[in-house]
Amino acid sequence: MRRIMLTVAYDGTEYAGFQRQPGEVRTVEGELDAAVSSVTGENIEVIGASRTDAGVHARGNIAVFDTNSRIPAERFARAVNTRLPEDIRAVGSREVPADFHPRHAATEKTYEYRIVNADYPDPLKRRYAHYSYTPFDVEAMKAAALYFIGEHDFRSFCSIYTQSLTTVRTITGIGVTASAEAMPREIVITVTGTGFLYNMVRIIAGTLMEVGRGAIAPERIPEIIGAMDRRAAGPTAPPQGLTLAGYRFIGGIPDPSAVELNEEVKTD
Amino acid sequence: MRRIMLTVAYDGTEYAGFQRQPGEVRTVEGELDAAVSSVTGENIEVIGASRTDAGVHARGNIAVFDTNSRIPAERFARAVNTRLPEDIRAVGSREVPADFHPRHAATEKTYEYRIVNADYPDPLKRRYAHYSYTPFDVEAMKAAALYFIGEHDFRSFCSIYTQSLTTVRTITGIGVTASAEAMPREIVITVTGTGFLYNMVRIIAGTLMEVGRGAIAPERIPEIIGAMDRRAAGPTAPPQGLTLAGYRFIGGIPDPSAVELNEEVKTD
Repeated sequence: MRRIMLTVAYDGTEYAGFQRQPGEVRTVEGELDAAVSSVTGENIEVIGASRTDAGVHARGNIAVFDTNSRIPAERFARAVNTRLPEDIRAVGSREVPADFHPRHAATEKTYEYRIVNADYPDPLKRRYAHYSYTPFDVEAMKAAALYFIGEHDFRSFCSIYTQSLTTVRTITGIGVTASAEAMPREIVITVTGTGFLYNMVRIIAGTLMEVGRGAIAPERIPEIIGAMDRRAAGPTAPPQGLTLAGYRFIGGIPDPSAVELNEEVKTD
Repeated sequence: MRRIMLTVAYDGTEYAGFQRQPGEVRTVEGELDAAVSSVTGENIEVIGASRTDAGVHARGNIAVFDTNSRIPAERFARAVNTRLPEDIRAVGSREVPADFHPRHAATEKTYEYRIVNADYPDPLKRRYAHYSYTPFDVEAMKAAALYFIGEHDFRSFCSIYTQSLTTVRTITGIGVTASAEAMPREIVITVTGTGFLYNMVRIIAGTLMEVGRGAIAPERIPEIIGAMDRRAAGPTAPPQGLTLAGYRFIGGIPDPSAVELNEEVKTD
């Protein structure tokens, strides 16, 4: 038995989120289960790293599964792709230790929130960006973003539906870039952290847009964080603007080869 | 009666091309007809500038129509957008002279052909780019592209289904850019010309990809053009990579105001 890690990219537009659900609802996890099971001939349920919401995209989500298949680990990505719908793609595969769990490992992940800021919507970007015709003050958004860096209680930036035990999280990097000085342009908010609360990035993006349109002064962000009240922050920005860009496993992923050697001795 | 010009952007994925067709087939022109007619209360058929193929996109196609509506010309874009599906958007509107015809006016138009060149497909770009895992030689593609510039008989780069009287066309600019030195990267072929034959840009793109993978030497392009035989060139590249980027009306668009003044004198 080996544990295989897939790196997964998807267009979330047509899915009710990552996490499998009962019934006929299409989910990314459900499609991965079906594709991996079809490739190995086993009945596999993958373990996903990030349960992205309906309509949210990923370039680098992670899923692991255990298999007795003899397919080389690096070939799984291509094999699984032959069974996946074209809006989901494995973009890498490798073996990991049998006890490696993508939600328990120490990780840093990066999200991007994309805004088309123009007089008219761009139909070629509508699936992957939020549209706003408001002329945003990007410098104010940049100044406001800096206040999020560090360890904070992010209760103000957490959906009331959260089940988390603690609302303290650490943001290690945040940036706001614009493709041009003036509209039409694309604004991208990039947020990196070691953990996120439910809807946290979308509420940060919604709050930075309020800053951009002049409704919230940048220097009010510490006060909004300190309020520990969801109503103090801006609205939750729509899902289609959000993309899980990728994971970094802090300290790397342990080499599975020693473990695997033992397994093989036992099996053969 | 005034003639209004719309600049139109669309995601061509869900359409059987620009040109209206009989029956239940979805076309961009059909959607524009319905939206404009709904806004003005008239029975309008728009005149399109470029009849893009099924699956081809546009950021700046052109459509004109005649109307007795009193809606200010610049407001038509937003009015029409309220009646269009979200994968089609008017991104500008203005009045033009009553005899202005977008297919008869002297124009230069620019197409972009987009290629995702990577080990794995990118599901977030699949609708708007052709995917190839072949490691292309971009410098060879750049060298080959230069041979297309100027006035040539492009019969080798024309679908056999063409109805054109002459196959002589002029390419005024062509370029190949890559987002990175190595894969994963995006390669964009940009072609500007005063007129194009059916499938011409897609055959040029298909031929440049043959150059990129080493199957055709760059300096063989003049010989391929000279052959005046479709079989001498590369394959027709798939439609989803192609976007009509925009039009430039050579000499500008005449001011309609004098004409309109006369019309109003007659009408009132």
